[in-house]
Amino acid sequence: MSAHSNDIEDVQNRADSRNVPINKVGIKDIEYPVRVADRSGDQTTTARFNMYVSLPPDVKGTHMSRFIELLEQHGTVSADSFGELLHAMRERLNAPRGFIEARFSYFVKKTAPASGVESLMNYRVTLSGECDEDNTDITLEVQVPVTSLCPCSKDISEYGAHNQRTHLTIAARTNAPVWLEELIDVAERQASSEVYGVLKRPDEKFVTERAYDNPKFVEDLVRDVAVELQNDSRITAYRIEAENFESIHNHSAYALIQSD
Amino acid sequence: MSAHSNDIEDVQNRADSRNVPINKVGIKDIEYPVRVADRSGDQTTTARFNMYVSLPPDVKGTHMSRFIELLEQHGTVSADSFGELLHAMRERLNAPRGFIEARFSYFVKKTAPASGVESLMNYRVTLSGECDEDNTDITLEVQVPVTSLCPCSKDISEYGAHNQRTHLTIAARTNAPVWLEELIDVAERQASSEVYGVLKRPDEKFVTERAYDNPKFVEDLVRDVAVELQNDSRITAYRIEAENFESIHNHSAYALIQSD
Amino acid sequence: MSAHSNDIEDVQNRADSRNVPINKVGIKDIEYPVRVADRSGDQTTTARFNMYVSLPPDVKGTHMSRFIELLEQHGTVSADSFGELLHAMRERLNAPRGFIEARFSYFVKKTAPASGVESLMNYRVTLSGECDEDNTDITLEVQVPVTSLCPCSKDISEYGAHNQRTHLTIAARTNAPVWLEELIDVAERQASSEVYGVLKRPDEKFVTERAYDNPKFVEDLVRDVAVELQNDSRITAYRIEAENFESIHNHSAYALIQSD
Amino acid sequence: MSAHSNDIEDVQNRADSRNVPINKVGIKDIEYPVRVADRSGDQTTTARFNMYVSLPPDVKGTHMSRFIELLEQHGTVSADSFGELLHAMRERLNAPRGFIEARFSYFVKKTAPASGVESLMNYRVTLSGECDEDNTDITLEVQVPVTSLCPCSKDISEYGAHNQRTHLTIAARTNAPVWLEELIDVAERQASSEVYGVLKRPDEKFVTERAYDNPKFVEDLVRDVAVELQNDSRITAYRIEAENFESIHNHSAYALIQSD
Repeated sequence: MSAHSNDIEDVQNRADSRNVPINKVGIKDIEYPVRVADRSGDQTTTARFNMYVSLPPDVKGTHMSRFIELLEQHGTVSADSFGELLHAMRERLNAPRGFIEARFSYFVKKTAPASGVESLMNYRVTLSGECDEDNTDITLEVQVPVTSLCPCSKDISEYGAHNQRTHLTIAARTNAPVWLEELIDVAERQASSEVYGVLKRPDEKFVTERAYDNPKFVEDLVRDVAVELQNDSRITAYRIEAENFESIHNHSAYALIQSD
Repeated sequence: MSAHSNDIEDVQNRADSRNVPINKVGIKDIEYPVRVADRSGDQTTTARFNMYVSLPPDVKGTHMSRFIELLEQHGTVSADSFGELLHAMRERLNAPRGFIEARFSYFVKKTAPASGVESLMNYRVTLSGECDEDNTDITLEVQVPVTSLCPCSKDISEYGAHNQRTHLTIAARTNAPVWLEELIDVAERQASSEVYGVLKRPDEKFVTERAYDNPKFVEDLVRDVAVELQNDSRITAYRIEAENFESIHNHSAYALIQSD
Repeated sequence: MSAHSNDIEDVQNRADSRNVPINKVGIKDIEYPVRVADRSGDQTTTARFNMYVSLPPDVKGTHMSRFIELLEQHGTVSADSFGELLHAMRERLNAPRGFIEARFSYFVKKTAPASGVESLMNYRVTLSGECDEDNTDITLEVQVPVTSLCPCSKDISEYGAHNQRTHLTIAARTNAPVWLEELIDVAERQASSEVYGVLKRPDEKFVTERAYDNPKFVEDLVRDVAVELQNDSRITAYRIEAENFESIHNHSAYALIQSD
Repeated sequence: MSAHSNDIEDVQNRADSRNVPINKVGIKDIEYPVRVADRSGDQTTTARFNMYVSLPPDVKGTHMSRFIELLEQHGTVSADSFGELLHAMRERLNAPRGFIEARFSYFVKKTAPASGVESLMNYRVTLSGECDEDNTDITLEVQVPVTSLCPCSKDISEYGAHNQRTHLTIAARTNAPVWLEELIDVAERQASSEVYGVLKRPDEKFVTERAYDNPKFVEDLVRDVAVELQNDSRITAYRIEAENFESIHNHSAYALIQSD
């Protein structure tokens, strides 16, 4: 192999005659270990990244290998450093706009409500951002598994009430730092009950009765979260979703509220 | 293009010198519409097929295009015609053994328990078979979504009980015809409650109370189904799985019983 | 069971005091068989539906069972009848806005380029629509599996060029009827090569050489499709995506163009 | 809440009268961060665990919370400590047999073949084990993404050859320590070419030409790996799978070899 010269022509630098701008171009579904800042320090997890830039109409192509070189150089992902990564990418790729999404499992140590036993819970998080030369928008999204208990079923039944696991997902754009744990707290507070890794019997009694005392439809879940987010002046935009994996059906009940 | 002659050499027919037999070789994840015989006639659905044959040590390769030609020629999938498809494949590919798996959604019209309203339920089915020159083994598997209600939660709580959607999966090998609907009936009968597409309010009261009256752990679900299958002389082998998508955890409870 | 009266109070009809409108509420991931009109008649397949309505701030909840009753009554899905289903839902649920998404596999009989052998290809389709009292917007989306061959790899290598399966996805909003097959044709025409279920050896030679003669980056794929869609006066808005499952990486190359 | 006494009766300890043993019962799909020993030290990643024990016919149920308490106490996963975790579980649950599966992404730093640029590659690993009082069987499985190039396409075409990403999966049971990196090396050595995170242009030339020089069918891939594993006296049993995500089809080509 004698051809490893650096003068192999780079097709991507040629001009393009079709005159069509590209909104996003880059790499998708690359997995990398990351350190994520959390409320009590930081944690190491693994993330799937999508990294894109926009491409002006006259530029033929982008440089795919540079995206991963950026990942090699950065390591800690957090709402703060994420903005730096975005701008570094936009500049390195010489592009008008940049977009990054990172999806990862995030772990929080929880304490069972009666026994006090500790265990980890994992939450699916999506950190996404876009930027141009002047602006940066970062969105924090977390999917919180909770319990929902059906008010109708409770009302009409002589005993019992159907309940199920629910994904209560909050996405927020902010003008000041907000911890993922704060969004998780809102979701768990507004659910019929929160869920845990380890529950001993007294804990199971606690969450069973808490859910029964606190019935909510998907409509209630998203509205109650919305009211709480509206009262937080740091949150400038939000999207709230509730998906109940109904225990009496083979489909989900679903609701979504999006701020204007 | 003048080269479309039929005398292009077929590499697959060459001999192989490594002396390693291959257990399975073929095509995976091809989707085809199928007609499936059901208890009240037949239905059209779409299936994902895996189709494999064994390869003796001295044969270099199989003929991938022939598998799909077989699918083109067959259409109706049922436990009966499935055996014919298996043997046709084994012969067409000139192979000692053949294996087919077909996964599809299967629809059954259900009647709500109080209102009598009708709606469809979908069940995930896997029909799998293997054969050699003398023998054919076909396994019918169906995943039945049901409700499970936790006996422990009911016992220790002053009111309510956590419940959730459960996948109760039965796989059976038989020596006489068994309808998928019969396996579905066993699973739905042994669950805390069955689930439905449409439930009006009186139905929701019915299934809520039925589940509360009928609490079962994953251990109970698989054992109660096992007892019923053991009493059916047509069933020669079985595998039973229960997976509870726990409403108080972010993981599943799971149990499996397999006949010897 | 003596309680199956119709006078069980319907909680959903109560007023809501939180004053928060809900953008979307309904059912998610329900599977139903459907008949879909195609260019040569119609075909039966199975679809996953999401069906939502908007909810004014003063209404407590929607009526989940009515969504499925609508599915029971309709059967044929096509761009035309889809608009009727949307409006029927909005009226039945007494809602300002309605949203439906249906995802299904769609089958097209293809003819191999040299041998003329016929086989089916499956395409993932999403039909989505939204409406209010006055307007209806329906979007047709189809994911077309094709071959892409890398121009850079071809240029710099003395022989060969890496190629891979690509998902070329076109979503279009139209002001006149457009067949799914027409969108599929655009994608297959603009790819390095189209893909097939069955290919005999002369066909394999044909597609191999066609791809080598026709190298394209993800950037080229989306731009070439965009140029063709811009010239179709029936198409009023579009989104084009190309995802290359790179054969030399463990991640995808990706590009997206969206009309304004 | 005054009811959090410890004398709530534990239903699981009751006797069972159905006389049906359960092969596996426990928890499924719980995610936990883990440290995994690798050839150059260790790495932190996140794993999905399934943890089961067998249940004798006369025991009513297992103790679900104890499984996660075990995860809380252990942290490092490796082939060695995995055996300890298995036995600790079996003893803690007082069960005849124990089963654990852990699935995680594993990262290896790779060096591009021409430029020497370094980047990470992720591999999907499954570590699974089962034990009774006397025996422990641990299986190491790794899915290695590689390039496969079709010998038939190369032979019959005047130029070019279709190629694609392949998952070459090796599962091995051993009588002496084997690093995951050693199994990865076998798969990458036997593929048409290995794949990388970052490739500069001279690297892309290298892997393109290497794949063209080294065409293999799925049959060749599994046989060539089998020959190499048969010559490693530490490997007592193996299963090898190759799945080609064919660039000229919308389905996979697949082959499997399993030792007796």
